[in-house]
Amino acid sequence: MSKEIPYKIYLEEKEIPRYWYNVRADMQNKPAPLLNPATGKPMTLDELSGVFCRELAMQELNVTDTYIEIPEEISSFYKMYRPSPLVRAYCLEKALDTPAHIYYKFEGNNTSGSHKLNSAIAQAYYAKKQGLKGVTTETGAGQWGTALSMACAYFGLDCKVFMVKVSYEQKPFRREVMRTYGASVTPSPSMETEVGRKINAEFPGTTGSLGCAISEAVEAAVSTDGYRYVLGSVLSQVLLHQTVIGLETKTALDKYGIKADMIIGCAGGGSNLGGLISPFVGEMLRGEADYEIIAVEPASCPSLTRGKYIYDFCDTGKVCPLAKMYTLGSGFIPAPNHAGGLRYHGMSSVVSQLYDDGLIHARTAKQTEVFEAAQQFAKTEGILPAPESSHAIKVAIDEAIKCKETGEEKNIVFGLTGTGYFDMYAYKQFNDGTMTNYVPSDEEIAASLKNCPKI
Amino acid sequence: MSKEIPYKIYLEEKEIPRYWYNVRADMQNKPAPLLNPATGKPMTLDELSGVFCRELAMQELNVTDTYIEIPEEISSFYKMYRPSPLVRAYCLEKALDTPAHIYYKFEGNNTSGSHKLNSAIAQAYYAKKQGLKGVTTETGAGQWGTALSMACAYFGLDCKVFMVKVSYEQKPFRREVMRTYGASVTPSPSMETEVGRKINAEFPGTTGSLGCAISEAVEAAVSTDGYRYVLGSVLSQVLLHQTVIGLETKTALDKYGIKADMIIGCAGGGSNLGGLISPFVGEMLRGEADYEIIAVEPASCPSLTRGKYIYDFCDTGKVCPLAKMYTLGSGFIPAPNHAGGLRYHGMSSVVSQLYDDGLIHARTAKQTEVFEAAQQFAKTEGILPAPESSHAIKVAIDEAIKCKETGEEKNIVFGLTGTGYFDMYAYKQFNDGTMTNYVPSDEEIAASLKNCPKI
Repeated sequence: MSKEIPYKIYLEEKEIPRYWYNVRADMQNKPAPLLNPATGKPMTLDELSGVFCRELAMQELNVTDTYIEIPEEISSFYKMYRPSPLVRAYCLEKALDTPAHIYYKFEGNNTSGSHKLNSAIAQAYYAKKQGLKGVTTETGAGQWGTALSMACAYFGLDCKVFMVKVSYEQKPFRREVMRTYGASVTPSPSMETEVGRKINAEFPGTTGSLGCAISEAVEAAVSTDGYRYVLGSVLSQVLLHQTVIGLETKTALDKYGIKADMIIGCAGGGSNLGGLISPFVGEMLRGEADYEIIAVEPASCPSLTRGKYIYDFCDTGKVCPLAKMYTLGSGFIPAPNHAGGLRYHGMSSVVSQLYDDGLIHARTAKQTEVFEAAQQFAKTEGILPAPESSHAIKVAIDEAIKCKETGEEKNIVFGLTGTGYFDMYAYKQFNDGTMTNYVPSDEEIAASLKNCPKI
Repeated sequence: MSKEIPYKIYLEEKEIPRYWYNVRADMQNKPAPLLNPATGKPMTLDELSGVFCRELAMQELNVTDTYIEIPEEISSFYKMYRPSPLVRAYCLEKALDTPAHIYYKFEGNNTSGSHKLNSAIAQAYYAKKQGLKGVTTETGAGQWGTALSMACAYFGLDCKVFMVKVSYEQKPFRREVMRTYGASVTPSPSMETEVGRKINAEFPGTTGSLGCAISEAVEAAVSTDGYRYVLGSVLSQVLLHQTVIGLETKTALDKYGIKADMIIGCAGGGSNLGGLISPFVGEMLRGEADYEIIAVEPASCPSLTRGKYIYDFCDTGKVCPLAKMYTLGSGFIPAPNHAGGLRYHGMSSVVSQLYDDGLIHARTAKQTEVFEAAQQFAKTEGILPAPESSHAIKVAIDEAIKCKETGEEKNIVFGLTGTGYFDMYAYKQFNDGTMTNYVPSDEEIAASLKNCPKI
C-alpha cells in the first residue's frame, strides 16, 4: 500500500454518517423482543411510549429498516465534536516491538469524555421534538450523565440524574460537571423514590448499582408530567445511535485501504461495542467479509462469559420490560472495588444474540492488569484512558504481543471509548498499589441468577 | 467567500509547522535581556546553561534567527495530538445573536488538557539530548506539571514537580495524573529545599505562589547532578515553542481566506498568548497587516494593566536571573480565592515589550464573570473550558455583543488554551454561588513593587 498512514485519520465534516446503521435488519436471528412483565407478551409501541419518547420507542422496535436517517439537528451537534479520529498507535507499536498495526477509534475528545454523547444528543433531540419538559436517567461511572446533561443544556431540557452511590462518592467532580450544565444529580439508591426507599431498607448501606438507579429514574419519569426516561446503554436504540462510531471507523479504514483483522471493544451494556462493530458484523452477516471480534468485559462483572442467555429484569426494582440477554441476574451488584463503568448485570440483546450466534467472542480482564495496560498506553500514546476503555487496550496489547511471537502483521482495531480524567480515584489506588481484583464465585452468580423470571 | 467553513478546521499532518517562529527577530525594540543579579550584567550562555539545558539557553538568548527548526523527535510527538482544530463557534454565535464570526483555536484535546504540552515535549527532548537524568519544575494550576510529566515519560526522564500548595490541595487528582506518568509531586513551599524552609518560616500557613515554587525547583535542579530546571511559561524559549499555536491558526485562516480582525488570548506568564499572536504580530511589525490584539488577565493578578515595566526578580526566592517585565513585584501572591492559573506576578519579556510598544492591548476580567462566560460557552459549544481560557472567552463574548450593537461582522479569534476537567473545585464554588472576586488595592501593589531591585 503506497498511501502513508498519518497518526490520526480525520474524516471531513461531510463524511460524518448521515444514517445510523440498524444491524438488526441484517440479522437472520433477530434479538428477542422486550416483554411486558405483566403479560409476558412483547411490548407494544404504546406500552413503550409511556416510558420512552415515541420516536425512540419506534427505533427500539425497528428490526427491519437497514438505515435510519440522522435528523439535521443531531447532525449539527455531531459536527461540534465529530468526526472522531482513528488513530494509528505508532508509539505503542514501537514500545511493544510488534509487527501488528494497531488502530484506535478515539471517542474521548468531548467534555462528556466518551462516546455516550452520540446517543445522548439523539435522545435529547427526540424528547425536545415531542415537546417534553425534561428527562430522567441513571448514570454509573458518570459518563452518560455528563453526556446527557450536555445534550439537555443544548436543547433546553431539564435533566434529572440518578447516580450510582459508589460513583457519586468517588467522583464528586463528575457531579459538578453535570451541575455546570444545569442537571440535578441524586445519589442512588435515594429516598426520593419508592423503589429507592425499598432498596435502602432491604440493603442498608448499599453502594448501589446501575440496575437500581434505572428503577429510580424510571419511577421518577413515569410519575412526573412531561418527563420520559432515557437510558445510556443496553437498549437497541442506543446501540443504533452508536453506529456512528463503526461507520466512521469503516470509512477511515477504507480510505486508506486498510482491512481490519481484529476488532476489539469493551463491553458493559454493549452499546459502544455494538456501535463499533455493527458495520463490520453487517458485512459478516451478508457474507462479504470476515473479522475476529472480541468483547472484553471485567472479570468482576462477566455477563457474556459467565452469565446465562435468558429473559431477565433490566433493573433491580423490576419496573422495566424484560429482556432476553446474557445476564448475571438483576440483583447482581459488582464488588465496590471495581472502578469505573461496565457494572451492568446484563448485555444488549443485539450483542447477546450475535454472541450466541458465534459472531463475537468474549474475554474477561482483571482490574489490575487493565490499569497496567492503561498506564502503558498513557505513557506511550499520551492519552490517559478511561478504565472502561482500558479493557479493550489490555486485549489489544495481548494480541499485538502474540503477533510479535508469530510474526503476523495483523491490523488490530479497538475502541478507545473515553478518557479517565474523572477516574483518578481509581488511578490513585493503582498508583498507591492498593487496587485489588475481585472475581465472583460460581455460587454467587448462581444465587443471583435464581431470581430471574421463569419464562 | 464561496468556501463553506466547517465547524472544525483541521489541517493535515503535513501542515504542522516544521519551524517555530521567533518574533524577537522581527522586533525593532528587542525585549530587554535577562540580567545576572550578582553582576547586573546580561546573562551569558554559560551562566544560563547552569540552570537550563544548553540548547534551550541558546534559544533564550536568540533574538536574531526568524525561524528555528523543530527537531524530528518533537515533530513526531506533535503528530500525536496536533494539529489542533480551529473551531468556528457557530452555536455560541447563534446564542449571542451576533453578526460576528467567532473562531477559537482549541489546545485542550490532549491529556495535559492544555497548550503546555507544546513546550514540555520540546524541553524534555533537549534535556534527553543533553544526556540528563531528569528535570525539575514548578506547576501552578497543574497543567504544566501534567504536560511535563507526559513528556518526560515519553523520553524516559525523571520529573520532579513542585506544585503551588493551594493547587495541590484543591486538585488532588492532578497529582494522580502526574504520578501515573511517573512524576514525583511536592507541595510548595516544602521543607525539602532551603528556600522552601525559609518561606515557610517567614510566612507560616502560606498557600504558595508560582514565584516561590520556581525558587524551589531551581534550587533542587542546581543541587542535583544530571538535573536541569525547566519552566512552563514566561521565558522566551517557551513562547517560541508555543508559536505552533499561532502558525497553525494562521494557516487554517488563510486556507479559508479568513482575515482575523481581533485576536484574544488569556495572559498569565504570557507564553500561550505570545505563541498565538506571534505570527500576526510579525505581520504587524513588518507592516503587512493590522490586527487588534487583546491580552486578558485576571483582575486579581493584573501585571500588564496595573504593574510596572521594570526589572524584577522572576521568583520569590530571588535565585533566578532578573527580567524586565510588567510586574506586580516578586512577592505578590494573588488571593487564594483566585482559581486556576494566571497567578504569576510578572509577564513574558516579549509580551511586555510588545505591550509597551502599543502592539497589544490588555484588559482585566473578574473571576465570577469569567465563570459566567465559561458556563455559557460550555452549554453552547459543548467544551467545559479551563478557568484560564475563560478569560479570553469572556472578552470574546463582550466583543461579539458589541458587534451585535454596531452590526459589524468582525472575525474574532481567541485562544481556547485548555479544558477545566481538573478545575471542578472552582466550578463547584461557582455552582454553589460561593465564588468571590478579589481586586488588589493600589497600596497592596505599590507595597509589593517596593521590593523590586533598583536597576
